[in-house]
Order: sequence, then structure tokens, then C-alpha cells
Amino acid sequence: MGNADYVYPSTNEYRQCAHPVAVPPPQPFFKSFKNSLKETFFPDDPLRQFKNKTPSRKFFLGLQYFLPILEWGPRYTFQFLKSDLISGITIASLAIPQGISYAKLANLPPILGLYSSFIPPLIYAMMGSSRDLAVGTVAVASLLIGSMLGDEVNATENPALYLHLAFTATFFAGLLQASLGLLRLGFIVDFLSHATIVGFMGGAATVVILQQLKGILGLQHFTQSTDIISVLRSVFSQIHEWRWESGVLGAVFLFFLLLSRYFSKKRPKFFWISAMAPLTTVILGSLLVYLTHAEKHGVDVIGNLKKGLNPPSFGDFVFTSPYLTTAVKTGMITGIIALAEGIAVGRSFAMFKHYNIDGNKEMVAIGTMNIVGSCFSCYLTTGPFSRSAVNFNAGCKTAMSNVVMAIAVMFTLLFLTPLFHYTPLVVLSAIIISAMLGLIDYEAAIHLWKVDKFDFVVCMGAYIGVAFVSVEVGLVIAVAISVLRLLLFVARPKTFVLGNLPNSTIYRSVEQYPTTNDVPGILILQIDAPIYFANSSYLRERISRWIDEEEDKLKSTGETSLQYVIFNMSAVGNIDTSGISMLEEVKKITDRRGLKLVLANPGAEVMKKLNKSKFIETIGKEWIYLTVGEAVEACNYKLHTCKPDATNEDSQPWNNV
Amino acid sequence: MGNADYVYPSTNEYRQCAHPVAVPPPQPFFKSFKNSLKETFFPDDPLRQFKNKTPSRKFFLGLQYFLPILEWGPRYTFQFLKSDLISGITIASLAIPQGISYAKLANLPPILGLYSSFIPPLIYAMMGSSRDLAVGTVAVASLLIGSMLGDEVNATENPALYLHLAFTATFFAGLLQASLGLLRLGFIVDFLSHATIVGFMGGAATVVILQQLKGILGLQHFTQSTDIISVLRSVFSQIHEWRWESGVLGAVFLFFLLLSRYFSKKRPKFFWISAMAPLTTVILGSLLVYLTHAEKHGVDVIGNLKKGLNPPSFGDFVFTSPYLTTAVKTGMITGIIALAEGIAVGRSFAMFKHYNIDGNKEMVAIGTMNIVGSCFSCYLTTGPFSRSAVNFNAGCKTAMSNVVMAIAVMFTLLFLTPLFHYTPLVVLSAIIISAMLGLIDYEAAIHLWKVDKFDFVVCMGAYIGVAFVSVEVGLVIAVAISVLRLLLFVARPKTFVLGNLPNSTIYRSVEQYPTTNDVPGILILQIDAPIYFANSSYLRERISRWIDEEEDKLKSTGETSLQYVIFNMSAVGNIDTSGISMLEEVKKITDRRGLKLVLANPGAEVMKKLNKSKFIETIGKEWIYLTVGEAVEACNYKLHTCKPDATNEDSQPWNNV
Repeated sequence: MGNADYVYPSTNEYRQCAHPVAVPPPQPFFKSFKNSLKETFFPDDPLRQFKNKTPSRKFFLGLQYFLPILEWGPRYTFQFLKSDLISGITIASLAIPQGISYAKLANLPPILGLYSSFIPPLIYAMMGSSRDLAVGTVAVASLLIGSMLGDEVNATENPALYLHLAFTATFFAGLLQASLGLLRLGFIVDFLSHATIVGFMGGAATVVILQQLKGILGLQHFTQSTDIISVLRSVFSQIHEWRWESGVLGAVFLFFLLLSRYFSKKRPKFFWISAMAPLTTVILGSLLVYLTHAEKHGVDVIGNLKKGLNPPSFGDFVFTSPYLTTAVKTGMITGIIALAEGIAVGRSFAMFKHYNIDGNKEMVAIGTMNIVGSCFSCYLTTGPFSRSAVNFNAGCKTAMSNVVMAIAVMFTLLFLTPLFHYTPLVVLSAIIISAMLGLIDYEAAIHLWKVDKFDFVVCMGAYIGVAFVSVEVGLVIAVAISVLRLLLFVARPKTFVLGNLPNSTIYRSVEQYPTTNDVPGILILQIDAPIYFANSSYLRERISRWIDEEEDKLKSTGETSLQYVIFNMSAVGNIDTSGISMLEEVKKITDRRGLKLVLANPGAEVMKKLNKSKFIETIGKEWIYLTVGEAVEACNYKLHTCKPDATNEDSQPWNNV
Repeated sequence: MGNADYVYPSTNEYRQCAHPVAVPPPQPFFKSFKNSLKETFFPDDPLRQFKNKTPSRKFFLGLQYFLPILEWGPRYTFQFLKSDLISGITIASLAIPQGISYAKLANLPPILGLYSSFIPPLIYAMMGSSRDLAVGTVAVASLLIGSMLGDEVNATENPALYLHLAFTATFFAGLLQASLGLLRLGFIVDFLSHATIVGFMGGAATVVILQQLKGILGLQHFTQSTDIISVLRSVFSQIHEWRWESGVLGAVFLFFLLLSRYFSKKRPKFFWISAMAPLTTVILGSLLVYLTHAEKHGVDVIGNLKKGLNPPSFGDFVFTSPYLTTAVKTGMITGIIALAEGIAVGRSFAMFKHYNIDGNKEMVAIGTMNIVGSCFSCYLTTGPFSRSAVNFNAGCKTAMSNVVMAIAVMFTLLFLTPLFHYTPLVVLSAIIISAMLGLIDYEAAIHLWKVDKFDFVVCMGAYIGVAFVSVEVGLVIAVAISVLRLLLFVARPKTFVLGNLPNSTIYRSVEQYPTTNDVPGILILQIDAPIYFANSSYLRERISRWIDEEEDKLKSTGETSLQYVIFNMSAVGNIDTSGISMLEEVKKITDRRGLKLVLANPGAEVMKKLNKSKFIETIGKEWIYLTVGEAVEACNYKLHTCKPDATNEDSQPWNNV
């Protein structure tokens, strides 16, 4: 470093034509704190529309914000009504058999499936911001309620307590969903990545399908567990109990349902065939049983359904231990999963139709409909994908289609429940299997494998966890792997050497751009992540190794010895105190080896912290450049300080050396 | 988008002078997997020195790798021995009283403190790679062992079981430490950031000091809890039990110790004064008690210490439940904390003396010394900061100073233990307080507040958690806040608008560089983090808002309408499938608004994934540029397509418009 002092003045002279790196003006702590809070919780800036409005207008806008029906209601036309009527009746024909099936899946009385398709859709129609979401119960959450509550209370031995626990869990699920929305914590749902959901849904669908073997084979005893191994063991240990009548009926109906799905998929215009198919099978199955008296020959039927609308249930909540814990836990997990499905579905269809969904508002709407629902004998509802897709295909225009569906269900509850007396359970199983097969999205899994191996691991983690252990374990595995990936990104950031693109002042990764040239005497490193405590030790070791390797390489080829190390900080979004200590240590290491450390393009946050910690003074303000190009130019100017005019005539002097 | 088709050909024509963005050549899956495993677990490339060596040489290098004494032993000189002898005796004089004090802190027999300063230093001297680390027990881990084991077994009621549990916990701590090293998982220690350690140490020191009030005030009954409130309540509820003799003695010795510390700090040459002070107070205190028979007037003394070396203890391990869980848990937590301290201390002094410490090798050494130690009546040891600092100041040259200390302690164990019979406990308390006061590093906390508010929150979280709840809670709070920060960095990445620096083709944040100019008709956004599932929803909303705001601004000023949105991807280190879906959605949004989406400088990983997912085809290869400058130039060329010669003559045509 003997000549460092000598060339200092000329470097300063050179710098006059380079661009200075700005330290952002200091901001009062409170202001920057407020800004970052706003960015974290209000990225969509929901208060923007309230600016410069009169108080009464503000009140009305606020009301509209929470009740979007006030926004689209006044503009509602007869044309819209016609479309909504058709789609509403279509989804009602799907909602009735599906509702009954899913309630059975949750070990709840079948009538609850109908109750749950009456009150919640009405609430959602007022509060929801999606035009395509069709509200109803979902298979995965139903299964989860069944397995989680079943661990605490046996549904057949103590049906009343079990039912009340289901209402309580739904209440807490709604409370959680609404609070997440009100507290602007919607981003928690983002931690269920697309890959997680693909694997989770596939696993849950597998589990649900296997559960249906009970209904299809007419088994009386069945395991409480949901994992593949227990279920298969339970099925095959009772081969002598299989009922062929039930099995044949199930296979025939399943074939019919799958055929209608296949047909509707091939010709999207006939979407209503697959939408109507479940109700048709229910009617056909019921007729068949009624005419052949099959219920006396081993085909189980639904039996009596009570006539009448939802009885109130807010008096039934169980807030006493030890049941409270189970209810809260079940509510939390099923609530989050239902929320994730509802939001993802709403968002997808909004994307198609080019309108926007406010995630936090949706959460409040879904949460409220579950809180109100739990007070009127409904269990957990959300916006299931299959039903919403039918709604969308049927041409719904607004959330009014949910109102139409609710009215159709109300009509059923008041007058038509006796008709379901002879509906065979095996038909319900066939309906569930046919719906679930669509959720096993193996093509998406293949796509994940092709594009991103890590996402594939997340997806398979979720699938295997759900299918072989339990739904909660699968979810935890998938979220843990996803979060691990984020942490690994920060803990092991990519670092790479940059080279000069021929005939330019552009510096890029030598691996990505093999045509780049080395710059003699200068090692340019790019760090591709924020410098935080989690990676500062790693970066120190990795940087030392880069310098070692470069010196070894130069020694072996006998080239100019290494003089400068430039860090391209463009991708270093932030730095903490551990990171600054790391830079200080690297500065000492380079000093000791007689190398000069140079920084290129540190961002605003980084400059602010380097300034506050006095690292800028340690490294010297004249060794921080705005671009890698300028840093290299300055270093070169110093390396060839014997011909100081070079830099002004030519921006890549080493190409001519 | 009417004119998009028209200008396409000319854009392609322009591109001939722009630099193409490379998709890195496809790598076989196994190779890239192997590379990323190597980067994750072997960033320091420890096998590098084994390359191109004969098998016997490789074996010897491998032996040297695990036993660094084989490396420095042959080069050991008489000069080194002289230095190591002095420093070894100095640290022994500190180790003896500190060892006894800390063993009391862990509710263990005082003699264990001496045992623990005999065997482990010998092991470390062979295996450790630090030249300055002085091995011994530490206050924080001792306190933690006392409080965690005390929850399960009462040390006064069942001393034998308590002792055996302490050995078992030490064994598991060593096992964990050695395994972390062997499995190359040392980066787990990195998650204890500098800020966490400052807060944690300060809190632990506060707690330890308060615990000493028992000894200083000569109290017989004392709370088992470690939090400030319980301890103060325990102290002040027994005012009438306070012993003034004990209190006065403690205050005098503490004053003497602090004075010697202050003096040594002012004049570093006299470091030995503060190093010898503890032993001096022990001798003076013992003499005083012996002469005045103060032990009969309310001054508690150590009492009998058994003569002789460490008895074996590997037969005492407790592997039966319910004690096993407690032992494993205590071992894990204390092991990690002790490891973090040992590694941090080793690294700091290596930094001073310009040599390198291999973190994973250190872990194996510290782990082995604890495993072996636990078999010979030692409890948890590591490299305490205070003792290592004395070792360093005393001029130690190699780990041989640890051997000298071990021999001095052995001598004490064999012949001098009766001398400690009359040592008053209050002297031990004074020694602990004086050592702990140095650990409350309020200056570091102020520095954290100045440089990085978030790190300050982490630090205070650790401090308050440790001081007001418990040591484990404090640790969990600090690590949770630190990890939350990493997740928040990814979940809420910074996005900002770039502008053009006058008279250049450089584009930088308009906030950091207020002199930048807008580019008419073009919005340039920089995304400052990888695009992952955790931020893809946020980014979609934030980007929409940027576009909205820009269009509003342009509308209000009546400028050229927005035509292009350029994303600067320089800082986007990676992307996952959720991120790609987000880009696809943004592409649809921009298409709908009649805007053209342009990418600038996507990195290797990003290009690879965009290519595999066919997004490059969706956006069009001709809309991906190597630099923001080239992207802007191309967009401008198109915007002013009526005068197509502009770009060749002038690189910033909009400045002249």
C-alpha cells in the first residue's frame, strides 16, 4: 500500500468527473417509522379515495367500503338479474347435494350443509368484493373439522357436544378471519404459497377420496385416522364386510359424474351438464332406492331431514375447558385454510374479469359470514373453487347469484327436505370423489418440478405430509420448508465475480455472460442479498475465498497482482449492524493483504447506515462510486497512474494495454 | 396498443446494437444440486488443501485438521513457552475463584468449578484452533443450568440427582456442539446476531448480579426465579434478615475489585492487577475470616473442599424419564449459548492477531471437551470473554497457556483445596458482580439505536425478556424478532422509482438522488428483493399503485401519457413459481391498460426460471434488456419513432425534446 498515499490526490482529481454517491437526507425517526408501518400494513393505500372529501361523503364511502353492495346495488340492472338468476339456480343445484355430502364428511348432521348454504351467502352478498365467489362449505375444511374435533369428542357417542363444538370452532374461525382483515394482517395468507396449496389440496383430496371408500363399500366400522395407511388397512381388513350392491351403485354414479365432467370440459358451452349432474344423480339415486327398497338391502340412505330454516345456535357455544382449546385450535387452522382458498379463488376470477379484490376486505367479509353463520347453525364456509367456477361459467354478474342460491336453498329447507329421505349415501360419496379428483393437479406438480425444484419439494412435502400423516402436519411441513427457503436465501446469498462486457462499460456475472473479460488487478464481486446477521459470517468467509482464489489464479498465470476489490452493492437492499461489522472486518482483511476495498452503488438504506456507523469515513468517501464502471475506471486510472491522461480519452484503457 | 404491431420491426432493428440478455446454459440437475449443497455447508471449502496430495500426506493433513496441535506443536519454541507460562498462570489465578463462584451460581458443589478448569482446557489445547481462547465455565450458562435443572430437581433436597443431571446436560450440550460442527451446521449460531448477544448478555448479567444479593446480604432463603421482580421482592421482603457484616465485607471487596478494573483499563500495561485481584480478594477474605472467626458471626464460608483430581462421572448419567427431557433441553439451550460465546470470542481475538478460525472445527473442539469433561465431573465449559481477554493481554502465544492453567489448577486440586475452607461466600459474590458489570454494554446498545433501530429492538427484546421473564424467553424473543426481520425484508421488499441522472445513461432512485429527471412516458421501477410467494401479492398491489400514481401525476400535469413500465431486476436475486405467476398477472394488467412491460437486467437464476416457465415468450425476448439505459433508449426510440435516427446520435434524446 506504499503508493496509496501518493496517488490519493490524483484520485480525488479524477473523482470530479465521476458521480457522487448520495447519502439520503436524514428523516425524523417518527416519520420513517410511520412510512414503513404504512408500507407493511397498507400497501394498497385504502384511504386514498377518502382524500379531500366532505365528512358526509367520507361516511358514505366508508360504508361502501365495508358494504360493497351499496356500491354496485344502485347500478344493478335487469340484465344483470337475468344472468345472476341462471347462475344462482345452477350453483344451488350443486350446493344442495355437495352441502349434504360435506356435512357427512365432517361427521355433522346432513341438514347443516343446507343451513350453511343459506345464511352465509346472504352476508357475503352484502360485504364481499368478489363478483364470482359462490359461498359454501368445502371438503378439506369439513374433513379437518371432522378429524380435529373427533380427537376430542366422539360424534356418534356425544352428537350434541360435537355439534356445539363445531359451531364454536366456526365462530373462532370467523373471528380469526375478520381480525386478520381488520388488523391488516392478510399477508399471513401469502405464506401459503401456490406450491403449498397445490400439494396440500392434492393430499387432502387423496385423503377425502379414500374416506369415501367407507360409503362406497357400505362399511359400518371405519378408522378415525385420515392417513392413507390407516385407511387402507381399515378397508382391507374388512374385505368380508364389503357390500356389492352399494359398490356397484357407487361405481355407476361415479362413472356418470366423471363422464359429464369430461364432456363439459371438452365443450365448455355445456358447463351446465356437469353442474346439474350431482343433483341428477341424487334424484336418480333416490328414485332408485324408493322404487327398489334398496335401503333394506344394505344401501344406507340419509333418512329424515328436519323441515324448516336454520335454528339459532348462539346459545350452544362451548366456552369451557377442555373443549375450548380444541375449538380454538380447530377454528384457527380451518379458518386459515378456508381463508386461503376463498381469497385465492376470488383473486383468480377477478383476474379473469379484470377487476380488483381487496384481500383484507374479503377477509372481513368471510369472517363476518362465519361469525353470523355460527350463530345460526351453520358451520365453516368459504368460496370453494369448484362452485365458484360453475358460477363464473354460468355467467354470474354480481354477488346477487349468491342471494339467488340462498333463496333456492331456503325453498328446499322449507318444502323439499322430505325428498332427500331416500337419497343413498353412496351417491354422496360418488359426488365427493368426482369433485375431489379435480383437485389432484398433477400437471401443476410437473410444472413446479420443471421450473423450480424447491417449490416442487414444498409441494411434495405438503402432499406426503397430508396423505401419510395428517392435514395439520402436511401444512406445517410445507410452510416450514417455504420459510426455510426464504431464510436460506438470506443466509447463503449468491456472490459472483463480474467481468467487463466487450466494448462497453457494463459489468456482468462472468458465469451468465461468458464473453466478459477480466479486469487485470481488480476483482469485482457482486453480493446478491441484504447483508444481515444471518449471512455476515458466511459472506466474510466466502469473500476471503474469492480473494484467495483470484490471487491463486493470478499467481499461476503470472498476471498483474491483485490491487483492488470492488463490491457491487446494487443488490444489497439493506444492512444491519452485524453486516457493518462484517464490512469492517473485510476492510481489515483487505488492508492486511495490501488490497484496496471499493464499494459501487450502495443504495439509500445502506448509505444511511454506513454513514451513521462511520464506515464511510473508515473506507474513505472517495472509494465509494455510483457504478461499477466508474469504480473500475478510477482504479485503473490509479493502476496506470504513469499515464494519467488515459481515462479521459478512453473509458476501457485495459482493453488497449 | 394499436401501434405496437407497427413499431415491432424497428424495435428489432434497434436491438441489434443493444446487448442481449443471456439465459445461462442449462446445468444437469445433479450438478447444480451438488453445487448449492457445497455453497450451503462448505462455504470455506475445507477440502481445498487436500487436493493433489499423496494418501499418506492426506492422512496426516486430516489428522492435523482435527488436532491442530500437530500443526503448531512441532514449531513450538522456548520463547513461546515463556509467554504461555506467564499468561497461563495469570488466567489460573482468575480461573480458581471464578470457577468456584460460577459453580455456586449453578447450585453445584464449588469443587466442580475447579474440576471444570482442569480436563476441558487440556482437550481444547489439542483440538482448538484459537490461540487466545482460555477455557472455563461461564456465568450465564451456569445460571441457566441452575434455573433450568432447578425447575425439575431441588439442588438442596436431592443434591446427588441434581449433580448427575448437570453431568448429563453437559454431555448433551457437548454432543450437540460437536454434531453441529461435524454436520457443518455452524450457521445456526449465526442466528444469534450481535444485537441479540448484547441484549442477552446485558440481561443475563443483570440477573446474575441481582442473584448475588443473596450472598452479599447473607440471606438464607431466596427465590428460585431469576426475573428482576421476583428477586427484588424476595430481597425486600426479608429486610430484617439482612446481615450487615456480610454486606459491609461485600461492599469493600467489590470496591477493591472495581478499582483494580478501572486502573487496569486506564493503564493496559497493568492488566495483571485486575487479573490478580480476584485471587487477592479470596486470600484476603479467607485470612480475615480465619483471624476474626467471622464464620461464627453470620459470614458464610465455602467449607470443606475435597482434595484430589476429578473423579470419573460417566457412570452417573441419567437417561431415564422424566429427567432425560430436562437434561436434553438444558443441554441444548446452554450448549448453543456457550457455543455462541466461545466462537464469538475466538473469532474476535483471531481478528486482532490476523489469523483464521474455522467455526465448524471450533464447534467440534468445544463439543469434544464438554463430552469428555462430562465423563470426569466437569460441567459446561466454553471460552469466556473475560478470561480470554486476560489471556490475550498477558501475551499468550498458543493454546499451551490452557495447559499451563490446567496444571496450576491440578496443583491446587491436589494440595491447596484446604486453603479455601475459610473463603467467605460474599467474596465470591463480589467477584461475580465485578465480572458481570463489564458485560452490561450500554454503549453498544446506544450504538445500535443510532445505526439500526431494528437491531436496537432486538437487543432490548432480549434484555427485557431475560431480565423480566427468564433467560430462555429472552433468547426466543430476540431470535424471533431477528427472524421476523429477515422475513419482513422478503415479505415487504422496497420498490422505488428510478430517474435519469443528468448527462448520463445512469438510472437511480429519485429519492436518493433528487437531481434525477423523469423520463416522459416511461415508469422505471426497481424491486429490491427476490420475488417469492411471501411478497408476490404485495408486489402486485404495490406495482399497480405505482402505475396508478404515475398516471394520476401525468394526468394532473398534462404530460405525455404513460407508455412503458420498466422493471429493473438487478436486485432480484431469485424468483419462484408464485413470483412468475405475479409477473404474468402484472403483464396482463399492463396489457389491459395499454402499457408495455419491459425487464432490465434479470440475473442468471431469474432468466433460467423465466425461460423454463415460458414467461420470456409471453413478454417477448425483445422486451428484455441488459441495462435500464438500453431499455429506456429502446422505448424512447419507439416513442419517437417518427424520427428514427435520434438514438444513434444521442443517448438521452428526451433531454433534448
